[in-house]
Amino acid sequence: MIFTNSTSNSFELEFEELLSRGKMDIANVSGIVGNIIKEIKKDKNKALFEHIAKFDKWEPKEDEDLKISAESMLHAYNNIDGELRDALHLSYDRIKTYHEKQKPKSWFDDEPNGTILGQRVTPVDSAGLYIPGGKAAYPSSLLMNVIPAQVAGVENIVVCTPTPDNEPNELLLAACHLCGVSEVYKVGGASAIAAMAYGTENIPKVDVITGPGNIFVATAKKMVFGDVNIDMIAGPSEIGILADESANPNHLAVDLLSQAEHDEMASSILITPSQNLANTVKIKIEDWLKKLPRQEIARKSIEMRGAIIVTRDMDEAIDLMNQIAPEHLEIATNNAFELLASIKHAGAIFLGHYTPEAIGDYMAGPNHTLPTGGTAKFYSPLGVENFMKKTSIISFSKKAINEIGEECALIANTEGLTAHEQSVRVRLEK
Amino acid sequence: MIFTNSTSNSFELEFEELLSRGKMDIANVSGIVGNIIKEIKKDKNKALFEHIAKFDKWEPKEDEDLKISAESMLHAYNNIDGELRDALHLSYDRIKTYHEKQKPKSWFDDEPNGTILGQRVTPVDSAGLYIPGGKAAYPSSLLMNVIPAQVAGVENIVVCTPTPDNEPNELLLAACHLCGVSEVYKVGGASAIAAMAYGTENIPKVDVITGPGNIFVATAKKMVFGDVNIDMIAGPSEIGILADESANPNHLAVDLLSQAEHDEMASSILITPSQNLANTVKIKIEDWLKKLPRQEIARKSIEMRGAIIVTRDMDEAIDLMNQIAPEHLEIATNNAFELLASIKHAGAIFLGHYTPEAIGDYMAGPNHTLPTGGTAKFYSPLGVENFMKKTSIISFSKKAINEIGEECALIANTEGLTAHEQSVRVRLEK
Repeated sequence: MIFTNSTSNSFELEFEELLSRGKMDIANVSGIVGNIIKEIKKDKNKALFEHIAKFDKWEPKEDEDLKISAESMLHAYNNIDGELRDALHLSYDRIKTYHEKQKPKSWFDDEPNGTILGQRVTPVDSAGLYIPGGKAAYPSSLLMNVIPAQVAGVENIVVCTPTPDNEPNELLLAACHLCGVSEVYKVGGASAIAAMAYGTENIPKVDVITGPGNIFVATAKKMVFGDVNIDMIAGPSEIGILADESANPNHLAVDLLSQAEHDEMASSILITPSQNLANTVKIKIEDWLKKLPRQEIARKSIEMRGAIIVTRDMDEAIDLMNQIAPEHLEIATNNAFELLASIKHAGAIFLGHYTPEAIGDYMAGPNHTLPTGGTAKFYSPLGVENFMKKTSIISFSKKAINEIGEECALIANTEGLTAHEQSVRVRLEK
Repeated sequence: MIFTNSTSNSFELEFEELLSRGKMDIANVSGIVGNIIKEIKKDKNKALFEHIAKFDKWEPKEDEDLKISAESMLHAYNNIDGELRDALHLSYDRIKTYHEKQKPKSWFDDEPNGTILGQRVTPVDSAGLYIPGGKAAYPSSLLMNVIPAQVAGVENIVVCTPTPDNEPNELLLAACHLCGVSEVYKVGGASAIAAMAYGTENIPKVDVITGPGNIFVATAKKMVFGDVNIDMIAGPSEIGILADESANPNHLAVDLLSQAEHDEMASSILITPSQNLANTVKIKIEDWLKKLPRQEIARKSIEMRGAIIVTRDMDEAIDLMNQIAPEHLEIATNNAFELLASIKHAGAIFLGHYTPEAIGDYMAGPNHTLPTGGTAKFYSPLGVENFMKKTSIISFSKKAINEIGEECALIANTEGLTAHEQSVRVRLEK
C-alpha cells in the first residue's frame, strides 16, 4: 500500500505508479487472441467446441448444445429465494427508469426557405452481451448490459457466458428469465467475442458487443472493433475517495475494500487533506480485512494497488483525483455538491456520506459498467447510446439550394472536386 | 461496373461483392504501423524527423520546425480569394449552428426521499485532429473536425497534417486561421496518430483522435484505441441512391460521379425499380466522365466499384439499401420523406430532388465525416459527442439509502461480495 503525503520526496514517483495503474499488456496476449479469432472465423462452432473442451472442460456434441433452454432459465427463476427475486426486480425497475431518461431523441429543424436538417437516432439491429461466468457470474452484470439494449429498442439480443463443467450459474439464468432474454449461449472468453462478431452456425453475428471480461476478452474486443462496435476496453475495477474530517473512517475503509475484494489488480485510493482521517482509515481497513470471506484477494489488492494520500488541502486532493480520473469517485464531505464543479473526470460520482459505491453497482439506476484506468478522461459509462446510432437528415428545397448553392460549388471547385461542384450547379436556376 | 437486375441469376454473387466493399486489409499493414507507433513512443520527435524525411521529403532540424506559425496562417487567410473566404465563413457558420443543436446537456432528477441521479456531460481536455495533406488537403475536413470539438468546449485542439516538400496547403492554413486553431503540426500518417496518442517533446498527448486518412492512418487509430478514444475506423467514401422515375438521370449521374472522383476505391451505387432510369443514368455517366478533370480516378472507381441495380419494386430497393447501409444515401423520389421510415441504416440521408450529396460535404451543416463500408449499422456521424464524455451522478440521503439498502445488500451478498454488502449495511439505521 502506498501511504504517503503529497509533500513527501518520493511522492512524484508514487503518484506516477497510480497514474499508470490501468496499463494492460494487450501485446502479450494478442498473438493467442488473434489465433482464436482466426479459428472461429474459419471453423465456427467446430472451433468453439474445441475451445470449450479445453477451457470449460465439457464437450458439446451439436450446435444446440451451446444454447441454454428457456425452461432452465424459468426453472432457475422460480427456484431462487423470493426476497432475492424481489430485490432483482427492484434493481431491474430502477435501472430501467434511469436508462429511459438517458435515451436520446431524434430531432428535426426547418428553415423558412425549405431546408430541413436533423439527427435521427435509431437502435442497432443486434447486440451481443458478454457476461463472465463461473464463480464470478454476476446477475447484476446481466441487468446492466441487457437493460440499456432493451431501452434502446434492440430487436436481437444475444448473451454469451462461459459455463465451466457445463454448469450454468443459476442466479445468472434466473436473471436472464427476469430480463426476458432468450438467446443465451454457453461460450466464453475471446471465442465468444469472435463468435458474436462474425457469427457461427447458430450464434448470430451482431452489430455491437459490450460487457466486462479479462484481458483476453478485452483484447478480442479491441481486435474485432471496426467490424462491430464495442462499448470500451475496460481493465480492473477501481475507486477513488475524496474525503475530509466529516467522513466516517469506518465507512470509507469498507468502501475501499469493496473494490479491493473484486480483484487483486483492483485499485482503491483515498485522497484527503486530513492526516487524522488517513491514519484511522488505515487501521479500520485492517480491522475489516479480518472479517471478509474474500480477505485474501482484498488484502493482496490493498497491498499491491491501494493508496492513501494526504494533501495540503482539498484543492490539491481534487487536482490529483482529476489526474487519476477514477472509475468510481466518492466525495465523502458535507459539501459534496459544492465540490462537483471542480471534478473533471470520473466514470461515476457518488456524493455525500450516504452514497457508498456499492449502491451504484446494484440499485441506484445508473450503469455499473464504467471506464477504468484513467479512460474516464474520454470514455463514458455504458448506456443506451451504445446500442443506438445516429443518421444525419438533410433536405433542401429548390429555393434553399439556390440560396447557398453558389458558395458550395465554389468550395468544391477550389478543392478540385468538379463533380461535386456540378452536382450542385445542375440544380441551380440559370 | 455491376449493371444488374435483382431477378438475375448472378445477382446474389454480385450483391455479396457490394456488401463486402468495405473490407480493409488492416492485417497487411499492421506490422509496419505497429513499428511506427513503437518508434514514436520511444524516440518521439527524433523518430518523427526520420519519418518526415522519408515520406514527406524534407528535413526538420528542431522541434519548432514541426509547428506552423500563426503568421503563416493569417497570411494564407488574407491571401485567398474574397468570395472563397466568404463561402468558407458561411460554411463555418452553418456547421456551427447545426452542431450546437446537437450538443448534449447534463441532466439531474431527484426523488422525494432525497435521491439525486443524473448524467453529466463534459468536454474532453484535448483533441487531436488528423487532416490529410498534400493535394488532397481539404479545408472542409478541417472545419468538419474542428467545429464539433469547439462546440463541445475542448480546451486544447491539436491538428496534424502532412506537408510534402515542406509546402503546407495554403487553403488549409487559411481555414486554420478562420477556425481559430493555433496548434498545427506538419506531421502525417501513422506517425501523426502515434504522436498525438502518446505525445512528443512539443506535440501534446490528447484524449481523442478524429479525422480521415488512408489505411495506415486507420490502422494506427485502431491500434491506439483504448489509450485514447477515436471517432471510427473509416474506409473509402461511398454513395447509395434510391430513385424512381421522378428523378433526373442527369443529376443522378453526376451525384454518383461525385463519389467516384474521390478515390478509385469509392463505391457509387444506384438502386431503382426503373429499368428506364437505370439505362439513362448509365449513358449520362459516360457523358459526364468525359468532362471531368478527375476522369481517370472516377472512371476506375465506376468500373471497379460502381453498381446500378434494377429491382422488382421500391420495397426491394429499400431492403437492399438497408443491407448496404451506405455512408451517404440519396432518396431521389417525390415522396422521399414517406420512405424515410423504412430506411434503417445510413450515415446521412439526403432527401428529394434538390439535395445532392455534395451540399452535405460543405454547406448544409451536418458533419461530412460519416461511417463507411456498412458500419453505419453501428457507427454515427462525427459529432459534438465524440469530444465529450459522460459521468453518472449518484447521491443518496440517509432516508433514501434506508429505503432500498436492504435489497441492495442482499444482492451483493448473493454475489459473494460481502464488503459491498457491508458498505451499504453500515449506513443503515439499526
